[in-house]
Amino acid sequence: MNNFLQWLDHGSISSVPGFKAAGVTAGFKRSGAPDFAMFVAENPCNFAGVFTSCKFAAAPVQYDRELVLRGGKLQGAIINSGIANACTGLQGLKAAKESARIAGGALQISPDLIAVASTGRIGVQMPMELIRRGVELAVTELSDKGGENASRAIMTTDTVPKAVALQLEIGGKTVTVGAMTKGAGMIDPCLTSPHATMLCFIATDADVENELLQSILDRNAKDSFNRITVDGDMSTNDTVMIFANGRSGVKIEKDSPEAAQFQQAVLLVMQNLARRMVGDGEGSTKLVTIEIIHARSEADAKIAAEAVANSLLCKTAWFGNDPNWGRVVAALGYSGAEFCPDKCDVFFGSIPVVLSGGDAGTPEADLMDTVKAPEFTIRCDFHDGDCSYWVWSSDISYEYVKINADYHT
Amino acid sequence: MNNFLQWLDHGSISSVPGFKAAGVTAGFKRSGAPDFAMFVAENPCNFAGVFTSCKFAAAPVQYDRELVLRGGKLQGAIINSGIANACTGLQGLKAAKESARIAGGALQISPDLIAVASTGRIGVQMPMELIRRGVELAVTELSDKGGENASRAIMTTDTVPKAVALQLEIGGKTVTVGAMTKGAGMIDPCLTSPHATMLCFIATDADVENELLQSILDRNAKDSFNRITVDGDMSTNDTVMIFANGRSGVKIEKDSPEAAQFQQAVLLVMQNLARRMVGDGEGSTKLVTIEIIHARSEADAKIAAEAVANSLLCKTAWFGNDPNWGRVVAALGYSGAEFCPDKCDVFFGSIPVVLSGGDAGTPEADLMDTVKAPEFTIRCDFHDGDCSYWVWSSDISYEYVKINADYHT
Repeated sequence: MNNFLQWLDHGSISSVPGFKAAGVTAGFKRSGAPDFAMFVAENPCNFAGVFTSCKFAAAPVQYDRELVLRGGKLQGAIINSGIANACTGLQGLKAAKESARIAGGALQISPDLIAVASTGRIGVQMPMELIRRGVELAVTELSDKGGENASRAIMTTDTVPKAVALQLEIGGKTVTVGAMTKGAGMIDPCLTSPHATMLCFIATDADVENELLQSILDRNAKDSFNRITVDGDMSTNDTVMIFANGRSGVKIEKDSPEAAQFQQAVLLVMQNLARRMVGDGEGSTKLVTIEIIHARSEADAKIAAEAVANSLLCKTAWFGNDPNWGRVVAALGYSGAEFCPDKCDVFFGSIPVVLSGGDAGTPEADLMDTVKAPEFTIRCDFHDGDCSYWVWSSDISYEYVKINADYHT
Repeated sequence: MNNFLQWLDHGSISSVPGFKAAGVTAGFKRSGAPDFAMFVAENPCNFAGVFTSCKFAAAPVQYDRELVLRGGKLQGAIINSGIANACTGLQGLKAAKESARIAGGALQISPDLIAVASTGRIGVQMPMELIRRGVELAVTELSDKGGENASRAIMTTDTVPKAVALQLEIGGKTVTVGAMTKGAGMIDPCLTSPHATMLCFIATDADVENELLQSILDRNAKDSFNRITVDGDMSTNDTVMIFANGRSGVKIEKDSPEAAQFQQAVLLVMQNLARRMVGDGEGSTKLVTIEIIHARSEADAKIAAEAVANSLLCKTAWFGNDPNWGRVVAALGYSGAEFCPDKCDVFFGSIPVVLSGGDAGTPEADLMDTVKAPEFTIRCDFHDGDCSYWVWSSDISYEYVKINADYHT
């Protein structure tokens, strides 16, 4: 498939034919940095969405969830950063709805075609005059080059914007998938179908029914954003949505080889962005892949991998370039996973550190190149079955503490 | 009861009549600080123990667990800090057994009367010559003033020793309970009956059968050490043991009013030490009590309280004196607890910050005195039942990251 697939230079959500985007400064952020994004298609699109499973779901999440349950079409979205519109009650829900109405009015389309997303401080009511200003400015800036600006405008503690696009050939025709994401802290999404503050918006010109889009998004979220953790804190606002305008003329039918090909392309885009989110995690200096193999069940592999990925002691050791496998086995041991400690091997990169539950005798010096690298894998082999699971994690640094002792979410 | 209860000045495990203790430098720590402790009774004692539920239980934990299952009597214990004797396989188990033999020999009692505990780096084999040196030095230092030295010798990243003793009157006679504990990191015990690197050793001169001692320890662990978290990482070595030499002549019978009185006294000792462990948590500057009230079930209250207590975003906010209730509600929301967000109230101290799931409108300035205090309570009222649960947590500071990026567990 990779022969037919090409990553676009400076690709973004507006690399997809028929989509325009903009990122502007509406005034949500005191810094004066861009804080309001909009993207819109030339025509109503099929769509799908997955959202946080936090019980305190933010107002825009509640609003968009309803859109997904309603079905039909969407044509665009507005996203502000700086205020999350979470824990804002009925007033917050009204604000989300009013935001869609303002955007629809300015775009001269039905407000029912607009999704709304927010990220930032929890518990603050939405200043509607800033939404109005954002919409007004964004509408005049909309362009097929605006995707990168949009990806900047949705940043909070992110240090770099995260946009991507790829093209693939299906049946001799070119299909484009473009996307943007944000998220650097409060990152441990558990996205569930219509019901994660990472935000990700994906656009494509493939022609795909909502139901198939939803099943692709559900499946891909499990293998991308649901596999990452920065700090183990799930947000009230996590949102991933995909829009398909059909403009390529490539119809993707359920259970077809093309559906598999398209799903894989969307997965590549989502994994690309998920990895970059972990790499840009608040204060993060390392991307560590935790892989559990030969477990009794995927559930056992998952809780074991997640225990290591979320262990504060492991994460601070990674920051300190410390090949401390004792903290890894402690986390495996308290994870709740069923396995036999005496059969467990652990590898840092390709180097064994634990064999049959005990010290492999590898000199610490031999491990230093691995743990000093910006990326490495910790692989735990339970020798106890055929199931496996992996997670992408980051380290925890002084900078993480600084950001989160100072920043008001 | 409190009328009959008195905390002893400079109380320690050796405040209990019939118990001697010592703390010496055997050489486990490069710093040259005390690193080997011993305590011993004049006569064999009834005893009980609770241990880590980590699957990678350290060799001394496996050894002591067997002692508890065997029953009978114990007369003393040796404890080293610097090396955990965890993930050390059969050689580690042999080392634990040999350590008991060495101590028994020097004390001229059966090795079967000696418990063994270790804390420190995982995956390193026990240098038996250091055990021999420790035993040799400790035996000559044993005294009824040695409890404080012993509590110093079991410290790792602890900044202060933690020893305590109290006396109570039962039936006109005085009963003493003395104890020591250590633990500053890798602290999130889940102590289970014969099966927590916090270490705690308790001595008493009450006359109590093993079975009653075990049920008191089980019940009290749930309301003390199992209620604390520093970093959410459970250790391979957590151990709590109680020794009763009967010397007071006060027999404690099962289901008697005296048993309730004695259990409460032991609980006060255990809670005193558990609180001090959180207060001395690695880099900790604050002790925060998380209390969930009016939940549907204790299980719901527990997972909600633990989610807040372990949230890295909450813990860094506490360090930053940030009255950030948004992070609290996010953690409640993703905890998995069943509750209705719209009914939830949250209080910082006695000040409401969330009412009916939304902003209580309390100005941030009004909260600053609370969050700047070294201790405060966050109370979440679910208005949904009669169950409750509380947890003691600490904040996470730069110092925590420094300690754990540098220290090799």
